[in-house]
Amino acid sequence: MKKRIVILGGGFAGVECARRIEKHVRSNSSTEIALVSEDNFLLFTPLLPQVASGMVQTRNIVIPIRTILKKTKFYENRVQGIDPVSQKVSLWGTPERHGITLDYDFLVVALGSETNFFGMQDVEDNSFKMKTLKDAVDVRNRVIDILEQADNESDPDIKKSLLTIVIVGGGFAGIETAGELHDLLTDAVKYYHTISREEIHVIVLESGDVILPSITKKLAHIAHTKILQDGIDVRLRTVVVSFDGDTVGVEDVDGNMHDDIHTKTVIWTAGVTPVNTVKRSVFKTKQGKIEVDDHLEAKEYKNVFVAGDCALFHDVDGKPLPPTAQVASSQAKCVADNLVSIINGKPIRTYEFKHKSHMALIGKRSGIASLFGMSVGGILAWMMWRNLFITKVPTFSKKIRLILDWTGDAIFDRDISRLKFTNNKKVKEYETEAELDDFW
Amino acid sequence: MKKRIVILGGGFAGVECARRIEKHVRSNSSTEIALVSEDNFLLFTPLLPQVASGMVQTRNIVIPIRTILKKTKFYENRVQGIDPVSQKVSLWGTPERHGITLDYDFLVVALGSETNFFGMQDVEDNSFKMKTLKDAVDVRNRVIDILEQADNESDPDIKKSLLTIVIVGGGFAGIETAGELHDLLTDAVKYYHTISREEIHVIVLESGDVILPSITKKLAHIAHTKILQDGIDVRLRTVVVSFDGDTVGVEDVDGNMHDDIHTKTVIWTAGVTPVNTVKRSVFKTKQGKIEVDDHLEAKEYKNVFVAGDCALFHDVDGKPLPPTAQVASSQAKCVADNLVSIINGKPIRTYEFKHKSHMALIGKRSGIASLFGMSVGGILAWMMWRNLFITKVPTFSKKIRLILDWTGDAIFDRDISRLKFTNNKKVKEYETEAELDDFW
Repeated sequence: MKKRIVILGGGFAGVECARRIEKHVRSNSSTEIALVSEDNFLLFTPLLPQVASGMVQTRNIVIPIRTILKKTKFYENRVQGIDPVSQKVSLWGTPERHGITLDYDFLVVALGSETNFFGMQDVEDNSFKMKTLKDAVDVRNRVIDILEQADNESDPDIKKSLLTIVIVGGGFAGIETAGELHDLLTDAVKYYHTISREEIHVIVLESGDVILPSITKKLAHIAHTKILQDGIDVRLRTVVVSFDGDTVGVEDVDGNMHDDIHTKTVIWTAGVTPVNTVKRSVFKTKQGKIEVDDHLEAKEYKNVFVAGDCALFHDVDGKPLPPTAQVASSQAKCVADNLVSIINGKPIRTYEFKHKSHMALIGKRSGIASLFGMSVGGILAWMMWRNLFITKVPTFSKKIRLILDWTGDAIFDRDISRLKFTNNKKVKEYETEAELDDFW
Repeated sequence: MKKRIVILGGGFAGVECARRIEKHVRSNSSTEIALVSEDNFLLFTPLLPQVASGMVQTRNIVIPIRTILKKTKFYENRVQGIDPVSQKVSLWGTPERHGITLDYDFLVVALGSETNFFGMQDVEDNSFKMKTLKDAVDVRNRVIDILEQADNESDPDIKKSLLTIVIVGGGFAGIETAGELHDLLTDAVKYYHTISREEIHVIVLESGDVILPSITKKLAHIAHTKILQDGIDVRLRTVVVSFDGDTVGVEDVDGNMHDDIHTKTVIWTAGVTPVNTVKRSVFKTKQGKIEVDDHLEAKEYKNVFVAGDCALFHDVDGKPLPPTAQVASSQAKCVADNLVSIINGKPIRTYEFKHKSHMALIGKRSGIASLFGMSVGGILAWMMWRNLFITKVPTFSKKIRLILDWTGDAIFDRDISRLKFTNNKKVKEYETEAELDDFW
């Protein structure tokens, strides 16, 4: 009898899992694989800061899922609900067609996470994020927008506030974004005749004692020194308590108020939380994540496996594993192996996570890397990072295009075009208001 | 005394005009140039169909205006109004800063045009356009969306309707878009296992007796034969009278109703009209265009020149010149020359338009071209088109990137990623509705 595996999610976890199962499945075999994702591409999230800075082109950090997974049936749909009792998944319809219900024998939940504002609605309403491709494009356009506005601004306070960017979170996303944007701004400023490099102010706020808390102290220190040298303002043990679009309220971790920061641009990278579909599911969750056993199977329901940001798995020290691409793809491999074992009537394996490497890019031609126990900084780490990345990109054409982008960046000037794809709500409201004064 | 030239519009006309004046202006001269545009880049509109098909990357058909115009003060603003009596232009503010008023000694109005639906609100609400970069990106994503939806559609009528695309207008934009999209669809279909090439139906509706009415009969015939061979369905003397999102109502030009076309995707390329700022201005307009004299100066106001789509200029046969990039840049050159002459106290020249060449791309590796009186079709025309284009792109880095895109396309497979930058209103409405049924 046919066995049907349904994988929910098209990120690193979902796609890696399907890929690995495909390797064990012959055509016309008794195993069917289906994958559901709201986007028809795999997004290379670690490259988002480079899209935000225009270092690489938007389209080059995505790969169509259909070109990677040839034996998997793909559904571009949002998941409406999961019913692990009757073993069914329901998918939302679109305005043009009905929803779909899929039956499964085995389910893999790999739906990932979204940005967590910890309930601060004002901060959420007024901040930029760095989680999706749209987020990165929005950030890029915002940065160019800042320069365009500041260049013709006569009020020095407004100009200063425009040229201040606050990045919340000193993890990989925050530090890499700060480095990339600082480089973009200082490069692009030559086209804006009334703005000098010294007027650009990039601030990173981190609640912990160090930046990049998930890596070794030594590496984090190299990174910290580098970004201070670049002129980025790093404030540790500092948390955001409010942001109304003009003023960021900040406190230290002991609850003492600090001076407000005047800025119109906050980029929030300070945390993620599993998507709502998972939180509101019938699975047993803790902090929104699904509790799993040693084999990554959901605790109360058989035949349901969980991988990536929505799985709650503790390492040997009892700490939950971080929501990174590395963890997601190593869990996906274990889930794939276990599913193949179950179908073939073999015993399943226990999941274990080993940190392979840590790498981060910090601005142009610098980075940090740990590999085989060594800590490296500067241009060497930057080269290692790029080479590692190229090996992870699954299709040949994208490998070439990425290399061309990076080469082009070394040769050509920054592209400062601001492509407005999104209908900014704020601007729209203003337009309606302003039309009333339209006396022509 | 300083003379200030203010140019409104950052399209081919505005940018070409500023460029040409810059050539005659030494630094520290007595002439100041300012250019106002709502986008900070020049858009190569003739390449929009290639962005829609993914042949070239979005960012490669735009060039930041600040990198082309080094001596011009640039304002990224929308124009609120023009007061030719007191010689002032007012610019809208943004939510973050006030509006600006610019004084001028000489004004160039080159604000271009927008899509004209001739008052059919239902068609406007439900159709895609091909005028801006966002339009082209929307069309591209829509085409991939169609494939994703049709692949999992079990109802044959809905599937057929999804796989039918109607393009309204048989001019350059319509024919090139039809060719590009037809090629994209037939290439991409191999990743969609339940869809066959034969199910794809691209229809072009043109109200005139021939396609490409602005070029010679011979060339138009070559183009027509080519697109019929490709399998594109061309219906002449046919006009759209309604489109509700599901059904296109069509008539022939004599007013006889034809069979409805069932489709969910209409792309409208059937006409343009000057922007509202021009229409509601105090200038004397006809069909929205500003009436100009032989020197391209506005008829009732001195020191105001007009170039491009918003100028009404008749050729020797008394026909208004078409709204093309070629006309726009030839008018811009004349306006620039006349402004320089006036400032230097020399006589101004009369504008005259000579058709230099006609070129169009029709799908992959085919096109039509007329140059030095010859008519060419097929791959030769396609190569001429590309070479001509490369010479028109002003910056070296974009030349290289475009060539790389075209080379890449010849080697690599189609990229079928659907990047959702825009918040589709329709989908949003549906989501709110659907949430009510959310029983999980």
